[in-house]
Amino acid sequence: MSATADVAGLVAKAREGQPRAVARLISFVEDASPLMRDVTAALAPHTGHAMVIGLTGAPGVGKSTTTSALVAEYRGRGKRVGVLAVDPSSPFSGGALLGDRIRMQDHATDSGVFIRSMASRGHLGGLSWATPQAIRVLDAAGFDVVLVETVGVGQSEVEVAGAADTTVVLLAPGMGDGVQAAKAGILEIGDVFVVNKADRDGVESTMRELRHMLSLGSGPRSGSDGDSWVAPVLRSIASRGEGIAEIVDAIDEHRVWLERTGQLLNRRQVRAASEVEAIAFGLLRARIGDLSGDARLESLAARVVAGAIDPYAAADSLVAGLSN
Amino acid sequence: MSATADVAGLVAKAREGQPRAVARLISFVEDASPLMRDVTAALAPHTGHAMVIGLTGAPGVGKSTTTSALVAEYRGRGKRVGVLAVDPSSPFSGGALLGDRIRMQDHATDSGVFIRSMASRGHLGGLSWATPQAIRVLDAAGFDVVLVETVGVGQSEVEVAGAADTTVVLLAPGMGDGVQAAKAGILEIGDVFVVNKADRDGVESTMRELRHMLSLGSGPRSGSDGDSWVAPVLRSIASRGEGIAEIVDAIDEHRVWLERTGQLLNRRQVRAASEVEAIAFGLLRARIGDLSGDARLESLAARVVAGAIDPYAAADSLVAGLSN
Repeated sequence: MSATADVAGLVAKAREGQPRAVARLISFVEDASPLMRDVTAALAPHTGHAMVIGLTGAPGVGKSTTTSALVAEYRGRGKRVGVLAVDPSSPFSGGALLGDRIRMQDHATDSGVFIRSMASRGHLGGLSWATPQAIRVLDAAGFDVVLVETVGVGQSEVEVAGAADTTVVLLAPGMGDGVQAAKAGILEIGDVFVVNKADRDGVESTMRELRHMLSLGSGPRSGSDGDSWVAPVLRSIASRGEGIAEIVDAIDEHRVWLERTGQLLNRRQVRAASEVEAIAFGLLRARIGDLSGDARLESLAARVVAGAIDPYAAADSLVAGLSN
Repeated sequence: MSATADVAGLVAKAREGQPRAVARLISFVEDASPLMRDVTAALAPHTGHAMVIGLTGAPGVGKSTTTSALVAEYRGRGKRVGVLAVDPSSPFSGGALLGDRIRMQDHATDSGVFIRSMASRGHLGGLSWATPQAIRVLDAAGFDVVLVETVGVGQSEVEVAGAADTTVVLLAPGMGDGVQAAKAGILEIGDVFVVNKADRDGVESTMRELRHMLSLGSGPRSGSDGDSWVAPVLRSIASRGEGIAEIVDAIDEHRVWLERTGQLLNRRQVRAASEVEAIAFGLLRARIGDLSGDARLESLAARVVAGAIDPYAAADSLVAGLSN
């Protein structure tokens, strides 16, 4: 009872713009707190308003700098911005990134900006589970824009980025260019492409190659009746703030297209479906987890080691135990 | 019926040492073929003989070269060796690695060596699911030694390496040394530590730092009644084959210790338990997957988007449907 009351209070404070309340709610998400059920229920009526923007790209293309510049641009347009920085790839870069975030956080004492590094806890399904929930927290807390920054390498990051309303793919000249983009599977997920660090050599050829590959690809995203979206290829120098307004304009145009064609609802239903699936999956996993210390799993494992039973048959037996 | 007969035939051919049969069985594993159940059942009676050795380390420490050298050393000692190269981290390095493997594969026309790159298919649980199954294939096919080479960054790789009977952790001088090892959590999983590229500056200090950190850590692995394992710190120059025999000797000593203390059975039961869990998890996931195109999940997702129901309640409803 009192835990539920606390959650309701936290959600109310988060909606008033108190960053500590927002942070605590996201911590519940990351820790997969037992309170998550209450948190999610309390958030549900307040969600669906934020624009969810994915920003992805390989290491070194300037994602953090671009994120900072986009935050400044959105603030200039009077929007409240929440940032989720998802960086599961490396235990080594974690520290430096965190420092970045803290500096940005200090800068943003106006409560119009909230920045959070999402740690991949290494749990299977950790990221794909926690990120949509954290988006939900920021959405309910009244942020107009939720920016999800991911390293564009690896399937789970692609999934996370793919969960956005609009996905911005960032590249840089001279990094292997479009071929790498194609390999990493980010051509398919991009709604807006940006070649950053446009003061370097090779911008033109990277943009040209990218446009060429996009034209060869699965073609423009189709909307209703030929009202299709052709992903623009833009350029920027994020460190000097150049080209940032154009990125935000392109995102806005994409948003208009999403709404006009019904694709926004479509994407959000796909996102909600995978969110529900992930939670269901977690619930089932927890049930298996409950059996982990169990004598039954131990004795099954011993029989597998002895070759008396094969692992599938053992798994069948384990699963059969869950249905009861 | 005929599919089952084919599987029995394949297993028989794999046990005769036919590399194509081994390769096909591993492909079944990677593709999570519907035949996996039959494959696993056919393999079960023939498993438990191979020594499973994990080799892990950060990119650049010389894992592939060391693997090659270890293969040559084991061949010299009359052992048949299967290699699983697990490299989930990068879509970019995949190509080069594959080239390496193909060259090694060409070299090994004696059927005493089998090398396979395990692709992370990006499925959740893909690696942790497929790798133990592939080990099982090589074990049943009669390889004396199964070497599992992983990039020592990221939780799933640590899990994979941790599933070995003996885990060799590879480092190189001047790569941030022990501190990075500690960060990546590989101090805990190493049974044998090797500082490779020992012709470079800083070998001594890396070895010293490593020994120091190991002495500070959770202490030596305890066996029964004070019969504990103190992980040795060795040095090698794998490109010249130097120090390789010593690594194999240390692995053999560890094996003797594992058997004497009962830890071998212990580790294998833990491995089997997590294997059974992973399969059970996959079975449950498949059940959820069956619901994905389902109208029920779609309508639940639509209600979530509308804020009429929260994702947890939707997941509860989905899971309730599985028990029937």
